[in-house]
Amino acid sequence: MQKISIAIHGGAGTILRSEMSEEKEVAYKEALQEALDAGYTVLEKGGTALDAVEQAVISLENCPLFNAAKGAVFNALGGHEMDASIMEGKTKLAGAVCGVHNIKNPVALARQVMQQTEHVLLMGEGAMDFAATIGFPFIDDDYFYDDFRYQQWLKIKDSEKFQLDHSDIKDKKFGTVGAVALDIHGNIAAATSTGGMTNKKFGRVGDSPIIGAGTYANNLTCAVSCTGSGEYFLRGVVAYDVSCLMEYKGMSLEDACNEVIHHRLQSIGGDGGLIAADANGNITLAFNTEGMYRAAKNNSGYEEVSIYK
Amino acid sequence: MQKISIAIHGGAGTILRSEMSEEKEVAYKEALQEALDAGYTVLEKGGTALDAVEQAVISLENCPLFNAAKGAVFNALGGHEMDASIMEGKTKLAGAVCGVHNIKNPVALARQVMQQTEHVLLMGEGAMDFAATIGFPFIDDDYFYDDFRYQQWLKIKDSEKFQLDHSDIKDKKFGTVGAVALDIHGNIAAATSTGGMTNKKFGRVGDSPIIGAGTYANNLTCAVSCTGSGEYFLRGVVAYDVSCLMEYKGMSLEDACNEVIHHRLQSIGGDGGLIAADANGNITLAFNTEGMYRAAKNNSGYEEVSIYK
Repeated sequence: MQKISIAIHGGAGTILRSEMSEEKEVAYKEALQEALDAGYTVLEKGGTALDAVEQAVISLENCPLFNAAKGAVFNALGGHEMDASIMEGKTKLAGAVCGVHNIKNPVALARQVMQQTEHVLLMGEGAMDFAATIGFPFIDDDYFYDDFRYQQWLKIKDSEKFQLDHSDIKDKKFGTVGAVALDIHGNIAAATSTGGMTNKKFGRVGDSPIIGAGTYANNLTCAVSCTGSGEYFLRGVVAYDVSCLMEYKGMSLEDACNEVIHHRLQSIGGDGGLIAADANGNITLAFNTEGMYRAAKNNSGYEEVSIYK
Repeated sequence: MQKISIAIHGGAGTILRSEMSEEKEVAYKEALQEALDAGYTVLEKGGTALDAVEQAVISLENCPLFNAAKGAVFNALGGHEMDASIMEGKTKLAGAVCGVHNIKNPVALARQVMQQTEHVLLMGEGAMDFAATIGFPFIDDDYFYDDFRYQQWLKIKDSEKFQLDHSDIKDKKFGTVGAVALDIHGNIAAATSTGGMTNKKFGRVGDSPIIGAGTYANNLTCAVSCTGSGEYFLRGVVAYDVSCLMEYKGMSLEDACNEVIHHRLQSIGGDGGLIAADANGNITLAFNTEGMYRAAKNNSGYEEVSIYK
């Protein structure tokens, strides 16, 4: 039997049990289950890993609980700027957008960049022009309004603080969503999407839209999607580092992920986590924070939906 | 004697001898020599590799012959959008900007991002706001006007073509500039700057401002600056790939650069080159194109200013 598998994340961070009500925990787990099922259904029907990670991330993007698309945090101007990327392990083709707005599903736009242009990364208004050119739908600002996110922003908007959707406030987490998958054809893929940092200024771009940092996929090694302190993931070139440890040092997926998250990333002061899959059906969910919203499933009977360690 | 060394590039591509006049060749070589000297002088005086690569790149940015800053090509809107990045091998700190305009020296702004923010990458108008906030000087559009670049753009502006400052036209090259250096303190650094693609649309971002793709530096391995078909360098995570081959496979700087440029990059269809330095005083200038504008110098008597193979 050809293996299929999928893993998703909804961000990592110091998710404190004391701040989590039973009701909230149920809501998070239901949302994770829904996204997992959205991706797994694609795989079960013989669909591609690329379709599976896109569908799983779209499900997470459509959920207000996670900091991506619908649940994107407010930037310093009271708006929403989003980043996303996607990569296919078979062809090593990739697409990404950064600093887009009024896009319901940035991951779907990233996929169009991959498929309809010779480019990998489009930014800001240029990416919006591309979206308009291909007839990609736009959505009103209202769609992104969320009272909880707005209150988060109001608390710090007059300060110099940026927030990775965590620290100082009750809901402490790095806000990013992502997925990795292996399909029945033996191909893997990865995708990541984020709403950035609350009160983000200056067009800051983190690791989420950067191939090699926040997202990477190569059939020979692994598919990886990251979440955490983006600047450290950029400087550590984290997603590709996992791939290189496998390709150049012969490490297993699990050993490579643990080496990167628990040693290399921590040695430069970075925190967060990642999800990874390889073409042999292995899945690793690694994080050096209190928790990571995560879920995974394969066709050998393994299924997990978890928040804490 | 502690070794010092520096290497610079002014882009790679199919630089045809038949299109190059003796006069033009002299002008290019003089400009390369000037940039080399600007960086080497810093090192000779005991300055840092970070200062040396910044000064060398500023010299190249100020020269209209190269596609960066002063010589930046025109984008689809008839304007100039520039990207730059810089990284320090000792601290693995990095700074970068993408899609900026009216900035005389984007590499200097990238360094300010590294030193004055907790961020790595700032994009577009947000990066411009950051520049304004720190009192970074702006310069008029006129500064970037160059008749040769304007004629390049006029020829293709009504087409769907993008140009990496090469192909179809006489002056065939990938337009990027960069520098790597080793200082007397044993630290290395790398910097890259580009004016992008002629008739560039949709806010396309290449590898130049991306840490791990176009620029990387780590004292334990190497400092790298790339130039070439940016999308392939992004997908290949080229600069960090050189570092990983050294760190994880124990390759020498030269072997790692050759493996990446002549095998791994070519296997996905990418062309271009890179310059690299390590903390032991080694320098490698590798490219899989007809030529690369390049120069290098150390304090053991080696000095080179070259264009062709």
